[in-house]
Amino acid sequence: MAKEIERKFLVKGDFKDEAFKATRITQGYLSSVPERTVRVRVKGDKGFITIKGIGNASGASRYEWEKEIPVEEVKELLLICEPGVIDKTRYLVKAGEFTFEVDEFYGDNEGLVMAEVELASVDEDFERPDWLGAEVTGDRRYYNSHLARHPYKEWAV
Amino acid sequence: MAKEIERKFLVKGDFKDEAFKATRITQGYLSSVPERTVRVRVKGDKGFITIKGIGNASGASRYEWEKEIPVEEVKELLLICEPGVIDKTRYLVKAGEFTFEVDEFYGDNEGLVMAEVELASVDEDFERPDWLGAEVTGDRRYYNSHLARHPYKEWAV
Repeated sequence: MAKEIERKFLVKGDFKDEAFKATRITQGYLSSVPERTVRVRVKGDKGFITIKGIGNASGASRYEWEKEIPVEEVKELLLICEPGVIDKTRYLVKAGEFTFEVDEFYGDNEGLVMAEVELASVDEDFERPDWLGAEVTGDRRYYNSHLARHPYKEWAV
Repeated sequence: MAKEIERKFLVKGDFKDEAFKATRITQGYLSSVPERTVRVRVKGDKGFITIKGIGNASGASRYEWEKEIPVEEVKELLLICEPGVIDKTRYLVKAGEFTFEVDEFYGDNEGLVMAEVELASVDEDFERPDWLGAEVTGDRRYYNSHLARHPYKEWAV
């Protein structure tokens, strides 16, 4: 089984000058149940369907299955998704040997910026850039599937 | 959008002598919500993922998206499906110009036999074989996604 080990952080400072790539992402959920999320996504000029299982106790490791599919099919599937589409730009930022994916959200999740880094194991060490804020790995409020239903703008401050 | 026009019936008599093909099917649901069911299926030696939208008022027409995927991937995905896997044999039976798919269920749905015919339009005429029983098109109790959660054996008689 494919497993992804990811740690997720809030972003507290400016990172854009260090980014080497930016891609617009629009995605919706056919299922946002944490035990079996089913996501369709347009990422730049490509389309994907991705299924994730529930995470382990720390939330860092989740079963993941993904297939590329035509963008036109994603657009059809978005029409039957749960209400609440996610719209964001994904920036890629190098820090030492690691590449962070930094997501800046729009729409009802405006104001939220999160960074993820993929690791070989849950306890692998990595360089922390200045703009990296509090860790939110495993906090389901920050799952995109949760943000689709309960956007950041509605959160109590 | 791909739409399937299907009418569904109970089966009340013997049809197996007329069948020209039989295939074992095992399937589970990543989402059994009628508005957006996500099904993974092993059918004979092939694997599929299928997404269906909600039907129209009569239940005969539903948006459908399907991709063939490796059987091994279906088996992985079955592990994270909702509880309640469907196990059945699908028989193909010719009646005039039409081919009926007749599903004989096992396990917790033992005793249930249903036939489906695909039509070009909701009101297209077709030949009714002797073994064709009451029509259940659009009755969500007979959706496989519903049978997975509420199997036939549990129904009040």
